[in-house]
Amino acid sequence: MVIPLHARVSAELRERIHRGALPPGASLPSEARLCAEFDASRGTVRTALATLRHEGLIIGGQGRPPVVRDTASGQPFESLVSFTAWAERIGRTPGQRTVEIARRGAGAAAATALGIGEGTPVVDVLRVRSLDGEPVMLERATFVEPVGRLLFDFDPDASSIYAHLARQGVDLHSARHTIDALAADRHDATLLGIAPGAPLLRERRRTLTAAGEPVEYGDDRYRPDKVTFTIDNARPGVPGTTPDLRVRKQAE
Amino acid sequence: MVIPLHARVSAELRERIHRGALPPGASLPSEARLCAEFDASRGTVRTALATLRHEGLIIGGQGRPPVVRDTASGQPFESLVSFTAWAERIGRTPGQRTVEIARRGAGAAAATALGIGEGTPVVDVLRVRSLDGEPVMLERATFVEPVGRLLFDFDPDASSIYAHLARQGVDLHSARHTIDALAADRHDATLLGIAPGAPLLRERRRTLTAAGEPVEYGDDRYRPDKVTFTIDNARPGVPGTTPDLRVRKQAE
Repeated sequence: MVIPLHARVSAELRERIHRGALPPGASLPSEARLCAEFDASRGTVRTALATLRHEGLIIGGQGRPPVVRDTASGQPFESLVSFTAWAERIGRTPGQRTVEIARRGAGAAAATALGIGEGTPVVDVLRVRSLDGEPVMLERATFVEPVGRLLFDFDPDASSIYAHLARQGVDLHSARHTIDALAADRHDATLLGIAPGAPLLRERRRTLTAAGEPVEYGDDRYRPDKVTFTIDNARPGVPGTTPDLRVRKQAE
Repeated sequence: MVIPLHARVSAELRERIHRGALPPGASLPSEARLCAEFDASRGTVRTALATLRHEGLIIGGQGRPPVVRDTASGQPFESLVSFTAWAERIGRTPGQRTVEIARRGAGAAAATALGIGEGTPVVDVLRVRSLDGEPVMLERATFVEPVGRLLFDFDPDASSIYAHLARQGVDLHSARHTIDALAADRHDATLLGIAPGAPLLRERRRTLTAAGEPVEYGDDRYRPDKVTFTIDNARPGVPGTTPDLRVRKQAE
């Protein structure tokens, strides 16, 4: 896989931020120095910085070198909601095979999560997600109908549902992720190519707008030998300086 | 999209808590005031409050206005390291039955995590942990020898190992928790009273001193029908005001 130079520059800087070589509050090297270090054009360096700014890792930069945010703690919101955004962030190639997209009445779990009555029309999506061509996750997402209907204009085999919804103006702002484990049933096992009864790492997700309206209920089932969650925490340090909590999803 | 009134009431109060307008320890407005403010029935307000109570954002409320929990910004370091501290924090009674405490040579996983050679002497502890008398977790902890030896003066059936170590001056400062899933083997299944092959939610932990020296490697296996992990995240808000990441361990 050929990685564009701007992505390599952003990956290297991201790594320095996560490793602490560029701690919160630190200034990044100037554009001129980054150009020299990476043998890159100014446009390439600016693209890389724009990526980090979009991810919330750095702020500022109009005329001055940007600064590492003190929220540079773990993966940004997108990476814990969008499989595509996550995979690209960690330098892997995401894939998807859509098993079904269906308008139907909400089941009990989705209805509770979405604050609607059981049987209210919703849009269900079931996809097998892969990393570098290998199936690692079963993605079940239930969208409230006004949002889900936007997916019928979209090829869910093509790319990220969340990027599509964002382009349509759907405002996904916060999410609660509940992590547990369960045994693969026969259907899950067939789709993932594993033995029935094998343990799966499950992330259920309730995604809200900024106004607190539920938009999506997700039930994502990962092969635990392929994907894990990592939590870093510490006793509080000097306020404002030490991020004492980080969460990341990792590929093995 | 029609959102039920109780969901709008709970969303608004949740937002005030996260924004800090209702800080930890603050009383919520009385039911009567909430009814007036939202033009809602008492039943609607109570449903909204029950949601917040279930989410762990507020406590109390029998006859008095409920209060914002000081855990509204996630659980502190202790709660994600010490089962005893966690259980007490969520108002449950922790228990422990020690299966073994042993001085032996480190196995491969512990040796790697602790940065020592395989076979270097360590102290292993295996306990069955319970909530309100019900077994919910198998706790395996491996301590570097200078720390682990402090446990031979201690009754591990009595209380928290971590509280004991803290009293002895052992400085546990940060931890990395890696969460995956695995199937219970025969031994695990017998100790937890579940079927062999049943899925378990595993938290492996590497605990460091403030100087970054590894002290403990843990492998805790939870019944996923009893304990889950919850991650709340959001797009960054106004810097310094909105907690955009919270992690909690929850008992079902």
